[in-house]
Amino acid sequence: MTEGGTLQNETEPPYYAVIFTSSRSDEGEEEYQAMSAHMMELAATMPGFLGVESARQGIGITISYWRDLESITAWRRDAGHIEAQRLGRMVWYDQYRLRIARVEREYDFAKPRDS
Amino acid sequence: MTEGGTLQNETEPPYYAVIFTSSRSDEGEEEYQAMSAHMMELAATMPGFLGVESARQGIGITISYWRDLESITAWRRDAGHIEAQRLGRMVWYDQYRLRIARVEREYDFAKPRDS
Repeated sequence: MTEGGTLQNETEPPYYAVIFTSSRSDEGEEEYQAMSAHMMELAATMPGFLGVESARQGIGITISYWRDLESITAWRRDAGHIEAQRLGRMVWYDQYRLRIARVEREYDFAKPRDS
Repeated sequence: MTEGGTLQNETEPPYYAVIFTSSRSDEGEEEYQAMSAHMMELAATMPGFLGVESARQGIGITISYWRDLESITAWRRDAGHIEAQRLGRMVWYDQYRLRIARVEREYDFAKPRDS
């Protein structure tokens, strides 16, 4: 998957979120989409990966969820991911912010289905 | 503002994020947009509010940032917000998840401007 997706992650808190908010440049849309899809696939193979949620509308927001800080460090140091980060800074992003946050509480709502 | 927006918040960690991911029903688009805009305006008046980022593409992701947990509790208990939450469960959302997370670290990137 690239952007969009469903509500993710059935793990109970505490766990970690990597909040990546970005402003795209006008360049390299096709390569960017391909790399995004590839990074989602790659992240899903990493130990400690719990899920990802993503949407772009003006700004892009991608939140990946991880079991612990060690899992996030390993993902940040993955060779394929480092290359994507380099291209991101060089070509695809005008600006981004990456936040690492500890999810402490969580509340769910699902509408009862009509019988 | 409603959805979209810019990269927000110049506060240094630690601070808090309320991550709200949602799946919309097919109902009440106009009222939903109006209420979203109103809630953004109302949140911005609350003590401890730091900023908000939002995008919808398939799923909706809205992240509001707050100075501390007390600010978040006050926002959740605001009368106007409680009414919006009630309508959200009754009409606008099929499903949502709300996560409260402590932002521990943050990294920024901005592309150097061409001279």
